[in-house]
Amino acid sequence: MNNTQTKQASMPHVVIVGGGFGGLYAAKSLKDAPVKVTLIDKRNFHLFQPLLYQVATGTLSPADIASPLRVILSKHKNTQVLLDKVIDIDPEAKKVFLEEREELDYDALIVATGVSHHYFGNDQWQNDAPGLKTVEDALEMRRRIFMAFEAAEKEPNPERRKALLTFVVVGGGPTGVELAGAIAEIAHQSVKNDFRNIDPTQAQVLLFEGMDRILPPYPEKCSADAQKALEELGINVQTKTLVTHIADNSVTFRQGEETKTIQAHTILWAAGVRASFMGKVLADSTGAELDRSGRVIVEPDLSLKGYGDIFVIGDLANFAHQGDRPLPGVAPVAMKQGEYVANLITKRTVGKTVGQFKYQDFGSMAVIGQNKAVVDLNFAKFSGFVAWIIWIFAHIYYLIEFDNKLIVMIQWAWNYITLGRGARLITEGSSLQLEIEPPKKPERATSQSKETVSV
Amino acid sequence: MNNTQTKQASMPHVVIVGGGFGGLYAAKSLKDAPVKVTLIDKRNFHLFQPLLYQVATGTLSPADIASPLRVILSKHKNTQVLLDKVIDIDPEAKKVFLEEREELDYDALIVATGVSHHYFGNDQWQNDAPGLKTVEDALEMRRRIFMAFEAAEKEPNPERRKALLTFVVVGGGPTGVELAGAIAEIAHQSVKNDFRNIDPTQAQVLLFEGMDRILPPYPEKCSADAQKALEELGINVQTKTLVTHIADNSVTFRQGEETKTIQAHTILWAAGVRASFMGKVLADSTGAELDRSGRVIVEPDLSLKGYGDIFVIGDLANFAHQGDRPLPGVAPVAMKQGEYVANLITKRTVGKTVGQFKYQDFGSMAVIGQNKAVVDLNFAKFSGFVAWIIWIFAHIYYLIEFDNKLIVMIQWAWNYITLGRGARLITEGSSLQLEIEPPKKPERATSQSKETVSV
Repeated sequence: MNNTQTKQASMPHVVIVGGGFGGLYAAKSLKDAPVKVTLIDKRNFHLFQPLLYQVATGTLSPADIASPLRVILSKHKNTQVLLDKVIDIDPEAKKVFLEEREELDYDALIVATGVSHHYFGNDQWQNDAPGLKTVEDALEMRRRIFMAFEAAEKEPNPERRKALLTFVVVGGGPTGVELAGAIAEIAHQSVKNDFRNIDPTQAQVLLFEGMDRILPPYPEKCSADAQKALEELGINVQTKTLVTHIADNSVTFRQGEETKTIQAHTILWAAGVRASFMGKVLADSTGAELDRSGRVIVEPDLSLKGYGDIFVIGDLANFAHQGDRPLPGVAPVAMKQGEYVANLITKRTVGKTVGQFKYQDFGSMAVIGQNKAVVDLNFAKFSGFVAWIIWIFAHIYYLIEFDNKLIVMIQWAWNYITLGRGARLITEGSSLQLEIEPPKKPERATSQSKETVSV
Repeated sequence: MNNTQTKQASMPHVVIVGGGFGGLYAAKSLKDAPVKVTLIDKRNFHLFQPLLYQVATGTLSPADIASPLRVILSKHKNTQVLLDKVIDIDPEAKKVFLEEREELDYDALIVATGVSHHYFGNDQWQNDAPGLKTVEDALEMRRRIFMAFEAAEKEPNPERRKALLTFVVVGGGPTGVELAGAIAEIAHQSVKNDFRNIDPTQAQVLLFEGMDRILPPYPEKCSADAQKALEELGINVQTKTLVTHIADNSVTFRQGEETKTIQAHTILWAAGVRASFMGKVLADSTGAELDRSGRVIVEPDLSLKGYGDIFVIGDLANFAHQGDRPLPGVAPVAMKQGEYVANLITKRTVGKTVGQFKYQDFGSMAVIGQNKAVVDLNFAKFSGFVAWIIWIFAHIYYLIEFDNKLIVMIQWAWNYITLGRGARLITEGSSLQLEIEPPKKPERATSQSKETVSV
């Protein structure tokens, strides 16, 4: 055992669960702290989720918006990255239990495992209306979107062809707005000359939102600008619309007293999130209180009541000590919380304390199609091209900070000039089937229950 | 029906099966011919297979080396792309039968469906030693290679750790040489600082070749240069080595009279190819003769004996009318054959004939690691950096011709400067599982029989 190791062995051990914005910023901020850090994630990469819709719509490749955690943290000599999944904790013994291997002792635990989709009690919808949280989700969406045009090209029945060219996005938050905008551009620009039997510009894109306007957390002017921009792209925006049933390539929805059903082959879910599994683990083991979405209610310093050494940050945390509602589940909040907890832990090693967590909100943004956006900075609001430029620089700034993703900028510039979508590949799960005989039972491309087994 | 359609309806119908190098060049060359063209492929993209090993080793993303067929052919007004699979043909009625939809009548049929892996009667090896033909194959290889380091990092048993850090590439042709070189560079450069419990530079990479030298079809000097370059990268090159058994993370092989077994977690297959399913279809329906690998023996004009309207080109064809052995299964041969058959068909529409197919061989090349290659042009041979520059420009030239893949060039330049591997993501088949409970039965990362079901 060399000197560094001996020194590290006696240092407090900080275990971070989750390598998203919160966990990664906590780890980064602990680089020079006198602690040993273990970052556990079930994936080997950090994902820049705000651009995931661009993978789902064929503009970017997964690797463009993902950076290996080991690369980001390779110069952090006090930090170990572990590819594993936490399945339980023992807060009294200060242990986390891992799926694959041993248990780990911690002195401080930071939980930042985020959220997953929420179907409001209708989990059976998930196959018919996939959500967008992981790289695999994005590739599945990409496959469905581009496969719909392929299937329509081959479909002789006009009614079924129309359903194949109908895209419904459920949820008018930033992800729903961005997805709908990108799909409209695929139909009206990217693929418009590529088919012989169908006219892709006849595709219908519908955006459903339950509230009375899209982008509900934004100022009203932003919502109105965004809706106008979406409608200019040919998108049918339906507010005050509640989805009541999804099945058989159809969506049933209620508007006021009226109930309608629309035939649509591609239905994408951007309507709700639920806390990840770790929320329940924390509630069971520490008695932490959860909110309706399963998020963990945290103390003013982001710790759990009665457990000053366990912190919950990012989307998984419900922080209600500032303003009149909990902080939103967005990347900047998670990043600031990660930095705050890292600082708190560092100060604690020398017996100091810090004040409670405070968040300075710099505003929000959402992009609409290729060159429009709405940006709500607290001191000013922008729409259209200027907003898009602000949006693109804010994102590039972040991407470059991590991994010099210069390529993404060039790719964007290129796509912007050529209106191209270089990544519109229809791929399946990795498969090692040898091609020996043709499949016994032909599977229709339009089948939603197609299974691929990868080995 | 407009004028163009009326005109097209009376034109001869050329059906092309397969959008690889052969089929795509045939389609491209028929752009202005007085024929109607249907290109059928089961994938929606053309894949630049010579660079597939760079996807398998995390340098490029699939979209960097794939172009949607519809985009490449969007300006070919006489051409329709059909995403489907041919399952049979009737050469007397001149029909092809499709998996998903109707049958198609043809006046001329060009079959260019290539080859798949060949395990020489040991198909059970395919799960333990995957080959490299599709995007999915490449992502599976990428997952295994990078997962091996992750699993080694967590493995306390030194023997198992050693097996996890042992990589065996079976087959010393260009693909095997390129894969082995890239894996050695991953271990010695890309990930060398990224782990805490293992030293990735201790990884062993072995390259097995049955013949007495690697790159057997190349001149002896090239083989020797390539072997020297591989050994400088730390690769253990074993010639005259026949694999006799693969199972349980181990490879058994025979060298002369001796039989040995090595424990290796990652075994990659680059040893043999077999004709795709269409070879058998053609043999059954036309009586065409197949060679030992199942390739279709063709006439001097690439047609089938007795069927002057059916042509087989590319890897699937065995063309033995030039030189003392069949033409090699490489991209330039397929491209030239595609152009030749397109020209033959065009001439035929005005009652003219063409001479037999002749191939002008300009040489071969293979790349070794990041900046070395061997290039055998007929008039000169190169190795090392100069060869690498020739190699990279030959590939870039082709990629740019199709899809302005400028990005790939920039990506390469960037990786060359930074020694980075931006695409080293470990991903699975797309999955829509909601995360509700932790998996009941923990699956070890080292398990080779792991199944993912994607919906």
